[in-house]
Order: sequence, then structure tokens, then C-alpha cells
Amino acid sequence: MRGVVMHAPGDVRVETREDPSILLPTDAIIRVSATCVCGSDLWPYRGVEPVKGPSPMGHEYVGIVEEVGGEVRTIRPGQFVVGSFFASDNTCPICRAGYQSSCVHREPVGGLGAQAEYLRVPLADGTLVATPDIPSDDLIPGFLAASDVLGTGWFGAVAAEVGPGKTVAVVGDGAVGLLAVLAAKRLGAERIIAMSRHEPRQKLAADYGATHIVTERGDEGVARIKDLTDGLGAHSVIEAVGTQESMMQAIRATRAGGHVGYVGVAHDVELPGEELFFSHVHLHGGPAPVRRFLPELIDLIATRQIDPGKVFDLTLPLDEAAEGYRAMDERRAIKVLLNP
Amino acid sequence: MRGVVMHAPGDVRVETREDPSILLPTDAIIRVSATCVCGSDLWPYRGVEPVKGPSPMGHEYVGIVEEVGGEVRTIRPGQFVVGSFFASDNTCPICRAGYQSSCVHREPVGGLGAQAEYLRVPLADGTLVATPDIPSDDLIPGFLAASDVLGTGWFGAVAAEVGPGKTVAVVGDGAVGLLAVLAAKRLGAERIIAMSRHEPRQKLAADYGATHIVTERGDEGVARIKDLTDGLGAHSVIEAVGTQESMMQAIRATRAGGHVGYVGVAHDVELPGEELFFSHVHLHGGPAPVRRFLPELIDLIATRQIDPGKVFDLTLPLDEAAEGYRAMDERRAIKVLLNP
Repeated sequence: MRGVVMHAPGDVRVETREDPSILLPTDAIIRVSATCVCGSDLWPYRGVEPVKGPSPMGHEYVGIVEEVGGEVRTIRPGQFVVGSFFASDNTCPICRAGYQSSCVHREPVGGLGAQAEYLRVPLADGTLVATPDIPSDDLIPGFLAASDVLGTGWFGAVAAEVGPGKTVAVVGDGAVGLLAVLAAKRLGAERIIAMSRHEPRQKLAADYGATHIVTERGDEGVARIKDLTDGLGAHSVIEAVGTQESMMQAIRATRAGGHVGYVGVAHDVELPGEELFFSHVHLHGGPAPVRRFLPELIDLIATRQIDPGKVFDLTLPLDEAAEGYRAMDERRAIKVLLNP
Repeated sequence: MRGVVMHAPGDVRVETREDPSILLPTDAIIRVSATCVCGSDLWPYRGVEPVKGPSPMGHEYVGIVEEVGGEVRTIRPGQFVVGSFFASDNTCPICRAGYQSSCVHREPVGGLGAQAEYLRVPLADGTLVATPDIPSDDLIPGFLAASDVLGTGWFGAVAAEVGPGKTVAVVGDGAVGLLAVLAAKRLGAERIIAMSRHEPRQKLAADYGATHIVTERGDEGVARIKDLTDGLGAHSVIEAVGTQESMMQAIRATRAGGHVGYVGVAHDVELPGEELFFSHVHLHGGPAPVRRFLPELIDLIATRQIDPGKVFDLTLPLDEAAEGYRAMDERRAIKVLLNP
């Protein structure tokens, strides 16, 4: 089969890889209908994370189940399924508490390479969720978004305790940040402040429910949020970048007693203990337990109540993955869908 | 009047200070019935925090109201009152959300010097809570504990989302840690693990409801907590020290999706962003909004349902404050009560 392999920072190739097969009786093999490039794929692409030899890429996927192992009970061949970036058993105490991405048996899907024609998904019953029926083509981008960026933005909003009557700020205007705006809207936020300086992203943020746009960053961005909230800060701030600046912007834009939900994968971030202590914020985040939200998100998409697929502003054949990475790296595209 | 003044690290004196008087119409003057030395007073005493010239000390106090300003409505002369270390209006949006120690009009009481015969309390209506009647002498240590260490331990337990069915670990066996054990018990924790290597403190922890004692610290302490929790970590961990080691011990001892409540004043703490991200813990803490809990705590003490006053294992006349500081610094005493 064909699949994306990263050889070094900036060096992404589509190559022939071995077809995956059932290794464990809890596995499933899916034929990938759509996959995509993630903001987190850009960390190694930019050399911020090391590339340890040729690495199959991709951890976002939807597709048709081809085959299942002998112990798979609920997932069946022929179903259209949505998964996420950590396989989970969905039965351990951590999963039952809603933290499937920290499942005691979790396996990162990234290493398996979802940017490919076929994918082996471990712990299929605990990882995959089937859609009500085979979706029409126009719904596929939405389901694909649920696989990571929507689930992650949603978790950010839940971690930030977004709810009715609250003012919410979103730091980061990538796909996750934009879908955090959508999540905040669905969860009933009264005011949603999107922090973005890119016009097409501002427009999508407004489509998704942003009531205010703040273009300033850092201390000036914080000052603008304070201006909009009687000097107090937002009730809920969703951090969707993962840098020192964005984390401090999120913490400082939150009122005492408020909540920061942080879902940008942290790189070289050190939080100053004393400032955090006196900030009085709640801090929660991490790799989104997308599995917790998939049944609800699939229903919202299938019934066309939300359209998270709009974050895909560039669609390419899988063979042109390298151009997809370039477009995202140069911020020419918000998010790139790849068709195997 | 007589009052404690710190001149330099290790140099604490009881001197004649000017009697306080009403400066603002929202002030009250109280005659201090009992005050005490706080773990946080040891930071400047040990030179970890700077001492900027002679500084009146103390921020824990109970006493009889002597006089109130013209705008004070609910507090009246003759009442026995409990206050805390930040004066608050108790009406701003931050106070109404339960974060009185971040009140938009907050004033630190520490700078006013509660280790003294009299104390001016700003924002008296929002800061002070009267007991049902003038308490008998044996209840005074308990009410004094409510002023800071009990309120702080309680907030730590609430921030750590302690509740029925949960396993709770407490890092730190000072007065705050011990009273966090008491709080965890009252809040219904199933198992309470006190981390302590000091026998008298272990005994008091057991009295207050600890079901397990762990003497190891750091990584070994974390391993012991994991052993006791099927490898997962505690649901709730209360951090009551404020050092890098204790914070990391608390975070690492908490299961994914669990809650860290941190109330030790952070000194030279830097939290590594990536580890925090993948830990999946909730982190909340800061200066305890003691005022939120005072009505409930006063009721529990007045009706003798709890006895937080047992943390005072040394009582001295105010004039012997220097010995009180020494005893706490050398860990000969858990907490020292001073009688003006």
C-alpha cells in the first residue's frame, strides 16, 4: 500500500509500505477513507521534535472496517468508523473516568501511520466508534475532524468548564482553536473571544460562533481580554498552541477562580509556580480523550447540527502529502485532508 | 501595644508598636484573643523571602471587636470574630465566585501584623465572621486554626475534589497538611494517605482520619502511592509544602484525570509543561479563600464536630514569640499559639 513516511525535518515522502495485518485478536484493519495532516505533525517537520529514522505518519482517520481479530465483539467489517490518536480498551478505571488517552493499555496510533491506504487499529472495540450508516461524501470531512481536532477542541472547552453565562477566550487559531470556538458555542458560552490575526481564520471563527476577535498577542492580548471583562479576565480560556507564550497568555487572561483548558502539545514550556499559585486558575488539559466524546460528536455531525469539516481548506490526493505538509507549515492552509 | 516585628532572617522581636485605629469607615479594630506563627512566616525567617526592613508579623487571628467604622453594618463591638489573611469585600464577582483571597479590593492582613494585642481589619463586613457566642477558652485554638491552616487545608481538599469513594494523598505534615487530612475525612474520602516521617505528626494524622502513612518521599513516595492504588495513583492529592520536590511528588502521585489541590506557597517552583500535559491531572490551588469556608468551619468547631486546635502543640505568651519561631523552624513544634 501507499503511505506517508517522514525521513527528516521537511522531508516527507509517500512510499510503498507493507500492508498491515491483524497482529492481535483485538485488532481491526480499516481501509482509510480520509486522513489528514495535524498541527502536531509539524513539530517534527519543523525539527522541534526529533525524527528518529523513517517514520510512518498520521494519527487521524476514518474508514471502512475490512477485517477484525477473533476477540473483537462490537466492531464489524463493513462499518464506517471513526477512531482517534490513542487506542484504548475503554474498560480500565482511567477510561471509565473519561481519560481514554491515558488508558492503562493505550497505544499511540501515530506510530502505525494513518496517512496511508490501510491502518491496523489496536483494541478495536475500545477505540473505534461506528457511524449510524455509511455517510455521504460531504460528511466525511466532519467525521475526520472528530478523530482529533474537533475532539481536542471539545476537550479543551470541557476542561475550561465552558458553560452558559460564561465568557470564553480561545488562544490559537489553528483547526483545534477554531473547533474549540464551535465547542464553546455548543456548550452554551455567552461570549466567545477568538484570538487571531489571520482574516480567513477570523471569518471561520465567526462562523463557528465567535462574538469577538482579538488580534493582539502576549501581554497586549491579555490586556484586551481584561478590557472586555471588567478587568477580571475570562471565565474560561482554551489554549490550543502549546508554547510558553500561549500558555502564559492563557493563564493571565483567566480570572481568579476561572479555568484554563490546555490542549496544545506543550513544547519547552515551564510554568512559574508562584505566578500560577497567585493566579488562582484551574489548569487542566493534556492529550484529548477523544473517545469520550466520539458518540456525541458523531451524532451531532450525522444529524448535521455541526459542520467541523469546514476547517479543511485544502484537499489533496495522498500522493501529494508533501505539498500538504508545506501548505500547513507555511500557514497557507488551516488543515489539509488527504484522500488515499 | 506589644507586637511581633521581624528585623532580619532569624531576628524576631516583640516591641511596642503604635495602637491601630480606624483609618477607613469599613475598618474594625479587634483585641486579639489568640494569634500564631504560620509556616509561611518561616520563609522570611529562613531568608528564603527577603525581609525589607522591620516588618510587623502575623496574619492569623481571632478576637473581640473593640470598635468599627461608620460603614460597618454586620460586625459589632463585643462580638468574637474569626478573620483570615486577606481582607475581602465579599461582594465583588471574584468573591461571589468563592475566591475572596483574590477579591478585587483585597488587602493582605500580614502587613498589618496580627501577632499583636490589637489589629485593624480592613473591609470588616466582608472579612470577619462572628461566632454564635463568646466561645469558651478551649474552643479558641480551633477557631484560630480556622483563620488560616484549617481553611487552607480545607481548600486544598476542595481543590483536589476530595469526595466519597476516593483515595486521597496528602503531601506535607505541617499544620496545613494535617488539617487537610481532617478535611478529607469530613468530605468523605474512602482512604487517606498521609505522607509523613515524624511520629507525633503521624499520630495526629491518624487521629484526624489518615488510614495509611507513607514515610517515603520523592520518587519512592510516589511509588508507594502507586502501590496502594493498583498502579494508578490517588484520585486526589493535596500539596501542602510549596517546593519543587513536593509539587512534583503531588503531580506524579495523582492518577490521570485526578486532581491536585496545591496550597503550599510556591517558592522556586517551575512546572515542566510537557510532563504536566501528559499527566492529565487537574491542577488548582493558590492562597486559600478561607472566607468562603468560615461559616461552615465555625459551625463545625462551635458544635465540637471537629477539633482543629490540636495542631497547636506549643502555647506561649506573645512576649516569647522568638522562641515560638525557633520551635517551628526546628520542627520541635507543629504550630505555636501566641497569647497576647
